[in-house]
Amino acid sequence: MAAALAQGERGRGRTAPNPNVGCVIVQGECVVGRGWTQPGGRPHAEAMALAQAGEKSRGATVYTTLEPCAHVSTRGPACSDGLVAAGVARVVIALGDPDARTDGAGIARLRAAGIAVDVGTGATEARRSMAGFLTRKGLGRPFVTLKLALSLDGAVAMADGSSKWITGAAARAHAHVERARHEAILVGRATLEADAPRLDVRLAGLKARSPRRVVLSSRDLGVAEGWTRIAEPKGIATLDGVDHVLVEGGASAAAAFLRDDLVDRLLIYRAPILVGAGRTLGDIGLAHLADAHGRWQLHDARRLGSDRLDVYERVRS
Amino acid sequence: MAAALAQGERGRGRTAPNPNVGCVIVQGECVVGRGWTQPGGRPHAEAMALAQAGEKSRGATVYTTLEPCAHVSTRGPACSDGLVAAGVARVVIALGDPDARTDGAGIARLRAAGIAVDVGTGATEARRSMAGFLTRKGLGRPFVTLKLALSLDGAVAMADGSSKWITGAAARAHAHVERARHEAILVGRATLEADAPRLDVRLAGLKARSPRRVVLSSRDLGVAEGWTRIAEPKGIATLDGVDHVLVEGGASAAAAFLRDDLVDRLLIYRAPILVGAGRTLGDIGLAHLADAHGRWQLHDARRLGSDRLDVYERVRS
Repeated sequence: MAAALAQGERGRGRTAPNPNVGCVIVQGECVVGRGWTQPGGRPHAEAMALAQAGEKSRGATVYTTLEPCAHVSTRGPACSDGLVAAGVARVVIALGDPDARTDGAGIARLRAAGIAVDVGTGATEARRSMAGFLTRKGLGRPFVTLKLALSLDGAVAMADGSSKWITGAAARAHAHVERARHEAILVGRATLEADAPRLDVRLAGLKARSPRRVVLSSRDLGVAEGWTRIAEPKGIATLDGVDHVLVEGGASAAAAFLRDDLVDRLLIYRAPILVGAGRTLGDIGLAHLADAHGRWQLHDARRLGSDRLDVYERVRS
Repeated sequence: MAAALAQGERGRGRTAPNPNVGCVIVQGECVVGRGWTQPGGRPHAEAMALAQAGEKSRGATVYTTLEPCAHVSTRGPACSDGLVAAGVARVVIALGDPDARTDGAGIARLRAAGIAVDVGTGATEARRSMAGFLTRKGLGRPFVTLKLALSLDGAVAMADGSSKWITGAAARAHAHVERARHEAILVGRATLEADAPRLDVRLAGLKARSPRRVVLSSRDLGVAEGWTRIAEPKGIATLDGVDHVLVEGGASAAAAFLRDDLVDRLLIYRAPILVGAGRTLGDIGLAHLADAHGRWQLHDARRLGSDRLDVYERVRS
């Protein structure tokens, strides 16, 4: 299942409105097929893996991160039918598909054909990997990651606004990889006007994965070509084909998303510096210190050069 | 040498004006003596270890974190003489003693008696362990640790001043252990007046190790019994018998020590919360962002409950 999840990660930020599923087919001790849902959402991961395995899928075990779909669309056949036709012996599924057109029907069809089905292996990781799709299905909006580049004492910039550079080259390169995992990147109006950020992916081989650019501004700016404007944070729900939004700044935009509890994941790039009287986030609507607790859980921590990256996830109970 | 360093750590914060040396004596594959410089600075670590080893020190190898002293004082004999008299075969020393009364004379006396001497094993760790003594010798002041309890976004408190609690029970307990490793704890005037902090060690078995209490205040407060006042950060140099100072807050005192570049070590207890428009450190005298870099290096990172502790050391070239 770990291998299937790794396949699925390849599509993250490119498969909306479909989930970034991953699939691996194993015959005996050999992997005979691998697939991930392709950019734009088709073909599905299972179809890719079955095509690669060919005749070797007969009697094989299939690992897939999401329940195979049960619905035939104009864009392709149902994966559960494809698995039955290929004669696989067993299907291991991480998560059931919440889409009303499948939602258990895929599993039922497999079992009706005499295929052994296990559900739940790697469910936590699968939920994390397909958070964009699941958040869109569950909350009706994209999954939001907020990126912050901070000093040890929480400054996003000097008091005069200068922030080039708080973090180093390794942290900035990592941030570009993160961009490639999102359908859209968002900045606030002040950041757009002050920095005119390119917000593209400046990494060899990944330039074509530069995401859609969105600006948060309550008034019409006569936004330049290639930019979309939303008037308030919850406007992200209206962005078609966007299941992952990366909020890059500045402090006002970050605070606006936090005030509306629209941040699901924090990427904190932390430099080993103290700034003192610098710019900080600003009001996020916290009334009492006790209310701040229990909202964020550390998921990952690593070093990037002399900086560090801490990834926190919003705890939603 | 690691075992000798662990012995030396037992005296940290209690041996001033003497260094917190540790010593282990090994005969064949057996440890036959252990010692650490006792509270107040005497007896020395080597004398303690030799007393424990007795006759077994003949022909043994001695590991000690600092060069054995060469000077006889009214408080005890010279350790180098003691080692010669005990008939040890070899002495492994982490660091030479910068004290003018020894400074190579201890090593010379051992070698003159036919004892093999190695110097330098574990020197980095020994320098860190005896940083209080070495800072007093080298810079004429105690070694200063600044403790900060911060949110992810660098707040030391809410805008209204409330800071109970940013960090959790495990972090606060760890901070009490740190108190016991310092001869003095310092707070600013505002913190003393607002919180009247006890600044003692509230841990079973360690209450007797509560350090001296110091307040930073430019004006005479009629300070209560048990408190010492200094008018400015560099006043720490005048604190007799204090080689380690823990600056506990508040933000103004912390910023004052940072402005004067008098902080050698940062203890950052970080809670997984966002505060927004909270209180931060304030002006630390930074003119340009570039000047902030290259000053702090991560030495240790660990989790304490849901909080984290990061230890940074000042890079002094």
